[in-house]
Amino acid sequence: MSKPLILITNDDGYNAKGLNSLIESVSDLGEIIIVAPDRPQSGMGHAITVNEPIRCSKTDYFGTLNAYICSGTPVDCIKMGLYLLKDRQPNLILSGINHGSNVSTNVLYSGTMSAAVEGALEGIPSIGFSLTTYCSDADFTASRTFVKLITEKVVNNKIKSGTCLNVNIPDVNSELIKGIKVCHQGKAFWDDTFDKRTDPLGKEYYWLTGSFDSKEQAEDADINYLQNNYITIVPTQYDMTCYESVDELKKWSF
Amino acid sequence: MSKPLILITNDDGYNAKGLNSLIESVSDLGEIIIVAPDRPQSGMGHAITVNEPIRCSKTDYFGTLNAYICSGTPVDCIKMGLYLLKDRQPNLILSGINHGSNVSTNVLYSGTMSAAVEGALEGIPSIGFSLTTYCSDADFTASRTFVKLITEKVVNNKIKSGTCLNVNIPDVNSELIKGIKVCHQGKAFWDDTFDKRTDPLGKEYYWLTGSFDSKEQAEDADINYLQNNYITIVPTQYDMTCYESVDELKKWSF
Repeated sequence: MSKPLILITNDDGYNAKGLNSLIESVSDLGEIIIVAPDRPQSGMGHAITVNEPIRCSKTDYFGTLNAYICSGTPVDCIKMGLYLLKDRQPNLILSGINHGSNVSTNVLYSGTMSAAVEGALEGIPSIGFSLTTYCSDADFTASRTFVKLITEKVVNNKIKSGTCLNVNIPDVNSELIKGIKVCHQGKAFWDDTFDKRTDPLGKEYYWLTGSFDSKEQAEDADINYLQNNYITIVPTQYDMTCYESVDELKKWSF
Repeated sequence: MSKPLILITNDDGYNAKGLNSLIESVSDLGEIIIVAPDRPQSGMGHAITVNEPIRCSKTDYFGTLNAYICSGTPVDCIKMGLYLLKDRQPNLILSGINHGSNVSTNVLYSGTMSAAVEGALEGIPSIGFSLTTYCSDADFTASRTFVKLITEKVVNNKIKSGTCLNVNIPDVNSELIKGIKVCHQGKAFWDDTFDKRTDPLGKEYYWLTGSFDSKEQAEDADINYLQNNYITIVPTQYDMTCYESVDELKKWSF
């Protein structure tokens, strides 16, 4: 059996430590192609670039690996990767390792996870990996073992077509990780505010800021397990219909 | 009973005809606050601005209405609107009218719909409206009647907390609209490619392009009804967990 073809991206940019850790974790599992953003693209969600052109060029930043740096969003990078591969279809898409957690409703804002969801849309098994620290010099040592383990499982077992996995890893030493939990997306929300400042010309500007409110979690929600030092896996799909509301709304007379 | 407070945004920018049509459609239904992007933000999905500051300033572009122009994404505009309102909570969030359809999997890429989903995350009843033409000079005459009708229904009836409505309107005269269908998100996908060009300096660049493949639709999918000149309403929520895969993946031994 030929080696699987693995398309890799992230949202922190091509030079992020997390991306390099992901590549190292899986480099002996298959043939690798990397298409990574040329700058940080955190919080880009499922954005695509439609109003301006995209640059994409081959790079030797990753040594002998087949790699490209792209001016687009993480979802653009997946689309570009599929375009560059022409008739070949990747067997697997990996995104990450993100610097920062993507549990709960963060799946919507996350460029890392949106790249994986784009893979699911294309019918390609996909995984987004995240580590629970925003530190650019984060320690990915513990992550590597689990990233490889979970990737091998997905290569050897099938996941349902049209789904991807949202994997979050606690930022602790290996021996403190209690295990792996398959669970569901939590209902935690950002309590947003804006930090209002004045620039040197006297004009106002704002920084989006806030805290993640993780109260009132179901026991089997991802955020709850992650806070208790479990690695979490949420199978994720892209049908956002609220089916239980369909019948209710059909009763409205228009 | 006091008039409902309605927060309005869009993704085509403050000067788009669709936004102005939305405002005209609902201006007598409540107190209006507008926070609209300062430029086109199509395809921005659920992107938020975390790596750069945001500008937001009051405008008299909409006459006497309380209105702001914001440099951020549609989701940023919703967050900014809630910030500007301080202790007041909108009773309703409206987004659109988008120039272009947002049925099926377009809900993921759409800034218009992501603004409505952000409203759902905030627990505020929200509606995203779209008309099936990308024409900047589109005729919104027929849309206005239905936008008002559907908005009134949502004001007078409750929609489930944590949901919003994805409303798509066919670009035809009123008499050709066959009715309103409450239905589910279709499974149609973009067949993407890139248009590769060379700039005057001899460097390559790409435009993302492609066609929407709408084959093999379930009869009650939004895209199918829309193509048959029905207005479609899909109740939309933000839990992307694939619940049927949770039990399956729990069988994997890690």
